[in-house]
Amino acid sequence: MSRLLNELTAAETARRIAHGKLTSESLVAACLERIAAREPDVRAWAFLDAELALNQARTLDREPPRGPLHGVPVGIKDVIDTADMPTEYNSPIYRGYQPKWDAACVALLRQAGCVILGKTVTTEFANIHPSHTRNPHNPAHTPGGSSSGSAAAVADHMVPLALGTQTGGSTIRPAAFCGVVGYKPSFNTINRAGLKFVAESLDTIGIMARSAEDAMLCVHVLSGRALPDFSHAPARNPRIGLCHTSRWHEADGLTQAKIEGVAALFVKAGAHVADFKLPADSERLFDEYTHIMCYESARALAWEYVHHADQISASLRPRLEQGWALPRQAYDTARELGRVCRRRLADQMHDYDFLLTPSACGEAPSQLDTTGSTVFNRVWTLLGVPCVTIPCGKGAHGLPLGVQLVGRFDADSELLAWAHWAERQIA
Amino acid sequence: MSRLLNELTAAETARRIAHGKLTSESLVAACLERIAAREPDVRAWAFLDAELALNQARTLDREPPRGPLHGVPVGIKDVIDTADMPTEYNSPIYRGYQPKWDAACVALLRQAGCVILGKTVTTEFANIHPSHTRNPHNPAHTPGGSSSGSAAAVADHMVPLALGTQTGGSTIRPAAFCGVVGYKPSFNTINRAGLKFVAESLDTIGIMARSAEDAMLCVHVLSGRALPDFSHAPARNPRIGLCHTSRWHEADGLTQAKIEGVAALFVKAGAHVADFKLPADSERLFDEYTHIMCYESARALAWEYVHHADQISASLRPRLEQGWALPRQAYDTARELGRVCRRRLADQMHDYDFLLTPSACGEAPSQLDTTGSTVFNRVWTLLGVPCVTIPCGKGAHGLPLGVQLVGRFDADSELLAWAHWAERQIA
Repeated sequence: MSRLLNELTAAETARRIAHGKLTSESLVAACLERIAAREPDVRAWAFLDAELALNQARTLDREPPRGPLHGVPVGIKDVIDTADMPTEYNSPIYRGYQPKWDAACVALLRQAGCVILGKTVTTEFANIHPSHTRNPHNPAHTPGGSSSGSAAAVADHMVPLALGTQTGGSTIRPAAFCGVVGYKPSFNTINRAGLKFVAESLDTIGIMARSAEDAMLCVHVLSGRALPDFSHAPARNPRIGLCHTSRWHEADGLTQAKIEGVAALFVKAGAHVADFKLPADSERLFDEYTHIMCYESARALAWEYVHHADQISASLRPRLEQGWALPRQAYDTARELGRVCRRRLADQMHDYDFLLTPSACGEAPSQLDTTGSTVFNRVWTLLGVPCVTIPCGKGAHGLPLGVQLVGRFDADSELLAWAHWAERQIA
Repeated sequence: MSRLLNELTAAETARRIAHGKLTSESLVAACLERIAAREPDVRAWAFLDAELALNQARTLDREPPRGPLHGVPVGIKDVIDTADMPTEYNSPIYRGYQPKWDAACVALLRQAGCVILGKTVTTEFANIHPSHTRNPHNPAHTPGGSSSGSAAAVADHMVPLALGTQTGGSTIRPAAFCGVVGYKPSFNTINRAGLKFVAESLDTIGIMARSAEDAMLCVHVLSGRALPDFSHAPARNPRIGLCHTSRWHEADGLTQAKIEGVAALFVKAGAHVADFKLPADSERLFDEYTHIMCYESARALAWEYVHHADQISASLRPRLEQGWALPRQAYDTARELGRVCRRRLADQMHDYDFLLTPSACGEAPSQLDTTGSTVFNRVWTLLGVPCVTIPCGKGAHGLPLGVQLVGRFDADSELLAWAHWAERQIA
């Protein structure tokens, strides 16, 4: 029974808690039990204090529900500050660092009655240097990054929900690799006060979940975005843009076939599917993205770079140096191109409900020294539009595959409603 | 002699230091002497450790110049984290709080060879509750806010440069009230890692200085923006938009006359001046600005609001409550309007070098329980464009007045070059 509890969706557990059929304490206990059994293999948690988590649950069990996620445990990526748990950004520079406060997103979850279960492993400063987290489907494969622990923990049924972040592909990619729903909201959806920045014009707080509905409940609590009615079918069939992007050749054959197959499935379900080309000049964004990322992250980590260079990984240091070497003009030009393409994309997407595109190049690489390519993520992040990956079968090595739905800017609730529709077509 | 040193511009002191004619130590000593004499009346500093400042100067005096501000002391608004000085955001919640790190902007200043002189007083969380800082021209008048200490310290010759921030009018207004140059860069010019957020889509790190050239040197060091050649006159006469805004009636008669007089002066100097109307619908931004400000600041201070409500001022609390009460849709609508008007303004400004508009409604109010109105600042902040205020005579009570120049987005170097031109016309 407790084995089952930790596998339920957040929506289902919250409903049971609200109806007095389940306590938050027993749910949290089930999650802790699963973690105790699996953590030595998965290594998803940067900090976990069982008593601290159970105490939060017991307190919440004595209250009437504060919101639609009352009593539900959430994992927090360890680049997000917490007042009662150390926050180390997976850097030796911050070993044992205890912030004074909760980041806005953590305070909002607590206010809504969520249990902050613990801190999930990030790559170093949410950048590319891999963490020690393993893919729960096969420990020889990367879980993806940088939200490695959040994806692995939700996938391994250690926690129903977790916060991640995305600067390039740090939410969508690990979610796809681990076989969970990953959601990167529109830029400026979830307040970032208390987030350790990688690149402030890109960093977006995202959500790992078991279903589109769970992601929606979580973003509703965090941002006040409207809750669609998931109990009703959509009033009409969706208009879908099939977006191969110019990097289609970087997706493996199975992923390409999967996207085409899902498009055909959607057509059969009544959808209108048409080819969708990225806006003119946006091809350049695949490379110019790097200018923004490196320029800003060099500055965001200026103190660490000057005072603790020897404690910065050999993977990260050259990226920071690349940022220091970049002329301001190149950075400004990349941002201007981003703004132009954002407007063009908004115009082009006017007649579409969402775009269908790969979540990643394929299944999780069978390596632990890389977190995989961001090629199917970074341009969407730069364009600020909402993205959802939903699990969709397995690859050649038996690891999960995902497909990505991309929505119109700020139309996050609509996108998640369509993701719910898509889940049912794929299931 | 030491009395004079602390009155020099940053450019002049840096030149002398670079040529071995002045030490950073003697400059810092002169500033400290001035502070010792005047601080009991002005109250501009939240933290100051004379030995810590002198030690930085002595270290820098042993090095060749690292950049164009080597050895120059800078005051840091106390909403910006510093690794070696407490950072209290002027809130009892953070009394004695010692961050682990330097904010990006502080690390960049240090890297460029600046002395971090101390922390300047902010209003509570850079919001509206006034600080105890006085206007150095008349202690019965507000220095403006929220960058109260930075403006007062530069005006009172305690330090040649100081960092401020602007979410509404928090740099331009206090600079005008205190009679210094205030510069709010284009949004995304100075990296914000380590800044305590008020409202993340508005917060902009700004600069208080004695001249446009000093502001330019400082933003160059902080952002890599190109240094214009201040030794040459501009190659042509400027095209200026005279922008009364729809709130012209909120400016007092002297301010209105001052703007018209400066416009006439610029025409005499060869400028082309034409009336400039704010873009269609931007009138609504004067009010809808508040939606963005309140919505975001409620979330940015969620932890403080939930856990320390009793230590939040009676001025700030209702603004946070306003933010909590606001529907997400109203916030999204205001942001969307901001984006639309930003594009329209860019189109309209295509044929102008800068706009001329009031910096504030008039001279600093003769009150200490308000920091003055943001009406001539908040829409520019929301539109993300660069703004400079330059001192321009006195008001009826003998306090300084300023005039504001507003530039095209990301054309900060051009704007500061024109501000340098304007300074010479006004002088």
